Amino acid sequence: MSAPLLQLRYRAEFCAAYRLHNPAFDDAWNRKVYGVCFSPNNHGHNYFLDTEVEGPVDPDTGMVMDLLELQALVQEKIIRKVDHLNLNIDVPFLQGRVPTSENLLLCFWEVLAPALPAGVLLKQLSLRESRDHQVVYRGPKST
Amino acid sequence: MSAPLLQLRYRAEFCAAYRLHNPAFDDAWNRKVYGVCFSPNNHGHNYFLDTEVEGPVDPDTGMVMDLLELQALVQEKIIRKVDHLNLNIDVPFLQGRVPTSENLLLCFWEVLAPALPAGVLLKQLSLRESRDHQVVYRGPKST
Amino acid sequence: MSAPLLQLRYRAEFCAAYRLHNPAFDDAWNRKVYGVCFSPNNHGHNYFLDTEVEGPVDPDTGMVMDLLELQALVQEKIIRKVDHLNLNIDVPFLQGRVPTSENLLLCFWEVLAPALPAGVLLKQLSLRESRDHQVVYRGPKST
Amino acid sequence: MSAPLLQLRYRAEFCAAYRLHNPAFDDAWNRKVYGVCFSPNNHGHNYFLDTEVEGPVDPDTGMVMDLLELQALVQEKIIRKVDHLNLNIDVPFLQGRVPTSENLLLCFWEVLAPALPAGVLLKQLSLRESRDHQVVYRGPKST
Amino acid sequence: MSAPLLQLRYRAEFCAAYRLHNPAFDDAWNRKVYGVCFSPNNHGHNYFLDTEVEGPVDPDTGMVMDLLELQALVQEKIIRKVDHLNLNIDVPFLQGRVPTSENLLLCFWEVLAPALPAGVLLKQLSLRESRDHQVVYRGPKST
Amino acid sequence: MSAPLLQLRYRAEFCAAYRLHNPAFDDAWNRKVYGVCFSPNNHGHNYFLDTEVEGPVDPDTGMVMDLLELQALVQEKIIRKVDHLNLNIDVPFLQGRVPTSENLLLCFWEVLAPALPAGVLLKQLSLRESRDHQVVYRGPKST
Repeated sequence: MSAPLLQLRYRAEFCAAYRLHNPAFDDAWNRKVYGVCFSPNNHGHNYFLDTEVEGPVDPDTGMVMDLLELQALVQEKIIRKVDHLNLNIDVPFLQGRVPTSENLLLCFWEVLAPALPAGVLLKQLSLRESRDHQVVYRGPKST
Repeated sequence: MSAPLLQLRYRAEFCAAYRLHNPAFDDAWNRKVYGVCFSPNNHGHNYFLDTEVEGPVDPDTGMVMDLLELQALVQEKIIRKVDHLNLNIDVPFLQGRVPTSENLLLCFWEVLAPALPAGVLLKQLSLRESRDHQVVYRGPKST
Repeated sequence: MSAPLLQLRYRAEFCAAYRLHNPAFDDAWNRKVYGVCFSPNNHGHNYFLDTEVEGPVDPDTGMVMDLLELQALVQEKIIRKVDHLNLNIDVPFLQGRVPTSENLLLCFWEVLAPALPAGVLLKQLSLRESRDHQVVYRGPKST
Repeated sequence: MSAPLLQLRYRAEFCAAYRLHNPAFDDAWNRKVYGVCFSPNNHGHNYFLDTEVEGPVDPDTGMVMDLLELQALVQEKIIRKVDHLNLNIDVPFLQGRVPTSENLLLCFWEVLAPALPAGVLLKQLSLRESRDHQVVYRGPKST
Repeated sequence: MSAPLLQLRYRAEFCAAYRLHNPAFDDAWNRKVYGVCFSPNNHGHNYFLDTEVEGPVDPDTGMVMDLLELQALVQEKIIRKVDHLNLNIDVPFLQGRVPTSENLLLCFWEVLAPALPAGVLLKQLSLRESRDHQVVYRGPKST
Repeated sequence: MSAPLLQLRYRAEFCAAYRLHNPAFDDAWNRKVYGVCFSPNNHGHNYFLDTEVEGPVDPDTGMVMDLLELQALVQEKIIRKVDHLNLNIDVPFLQGRVPTSENLLLCFWEVLAPALPAGVLLKQLSLRESRDHQVVYRGPKST
């Protein structure tokens, strides 16, 4: 009989500035698509990033993995790279991407998924950009 | 390769009065089934409605859809129809339904699902009727 | 040297229906003053009531009073009288008062202040009627 | 046509002391695996337990089951057994298990699943052990 | 006998970018004083602004003032001037001030206090710049 | 003209085990006074400690003090001394005190007040021991 699968979740906060602007299109297109988020001198958010991973319970430790180890990984791989920075300018792995919450999650996934310990899978990332607005990504579909 | 699928979530608050009472049954049945919610002169809630939709990321905009557009749809189709009103009396699309949270979600789904833009699907509605009590609906099962 | 003074706070939730309407004035006045809250068939809220009391620490127990005793008092004197009820109709101590949050607090104060144990004073009542709107009462000013 | 399936969620809070320590291993192993949670004189949490059940809506009542009945079950079967107690010592159904959040959920599942009314299934238990750390269990996989 | 005094509170959210930098000093001074907030390309926050006003209850309306009128004032005088903007560049009434939360509150006070209706006083502004950090201003001391 | 006074607030979380028991009295007295908190094998909480300090705004920096410096002080002087520990046994500055929230605040005050920078005063400590129960201390009264 195999060990039961459980999910761990860790919530992290970071604050960053950004502007929504796709340089492949003109200002009229950008203003229409991004509205107030096209604001030229940036705005910003306290983002809350929820990371969910899944794995079997180790029968010796009674844990999937140490929640503090998960916290350390998310802090090291993502939060330290984006916190108190400008998402359009300061983050190497976001270069060339319009920093919508959708694109942030796609980039965070690529950075975080390979960093997890063996046997633990990234299941879901969700990013709350304001009290009432949130985006969720459950990963690329396998074929 | 197809565009990645993500989910957007928007939380809205509304406040309404209601009473649980099924006129097809007598008072004894209603009192037994609905308990304090059968209270004849109504009670009420600040409801929190969480709407989750799913769609592919547009490669030009980096968005599934504008979260403010989703907000505007939920406000127009649902919140303005129920906020500061009586759910037993004042809402045409709730007529003839006992306003349990379950029935509210079933009715909200019918109103909201067809109003979403092409390519965006309603995935989940959840309604928190008090700090600790919530009902979730993930839609009709396809056959 | 006297014992230090501290404050205890207890938060309680109740849900109730009501309508803002002052029968001493005509409908035009009421509609102008109360707006959507004049809605004839009632609306409702999950109210959060925060009670703050003050007293000296008992040197034997290390407590001002038992927080569970404070909880029991608020539940008995207020919450059970208003929860799942209609504030215009069902609550004897609110009769003849327009149930604005301000008036609710004034009435709750009169009910709760005399019920506290000797040496413990009611310092503040605050009522949150929605996530962003709150009213606070710090009691009658002594002369 | 079958009745629609919905999910109900109830959140309960309990506070308990515990220590992470597996007596099958020596202190060095335990200190390495459990870090600060190996602290010999215990620490504790206000845990939040979210229970999600699923069932069809009864066409007469408009409910899956009474949310207050779900609340009563969770309180009786779990909360009263663990609240204000020591998870290593005081809870019969936890004997012999290291009280990690993962193991707590596995034990809570075994206690709660058989107690639900006919037609209602336990879908998910999640346990928040601090503001930012949470574990989720979606039940044993059927074969 | 005079009417009882009560306080009303309204919470508003806005998101903005900014950088802490005092041009009267050199970079070394600024880096030492402002740390990560000196980050050259800005960062940002979802700020929560809590406004508290005080006034007597009108015996006819049972209200100090309409909470929705207070909301409209705060939105018009402050939120629309700062939301989705850069606090160093885009806000006329912040020109020449380092946008620390302390300075933001001092400027918001000057804008909001004179705009309140007769008989209603501004009592407290508080600004939460992250989940755990908040600044409060209770106004200039009268002499 | 003197600089305006503002308040800073920082919220910290810690988790600890404890038991309420005054050894100067017998078990019957303790059971009557402390109820479930007399539970012999301890229970525990995730406590939230809110620290409020007050000082004048420095005209050069625009700050009362650096909020991160306040955070570091609270973490060093209090949180590291109590987190993941047993309040009856493991904390030198709590020895001989029944660890009620009232007594915790009185002890935290003595530790923290003298550690603040010159010109900054401790104004209020508040400790939330569960979602709905909180104790507040505003310091010794000057004579």
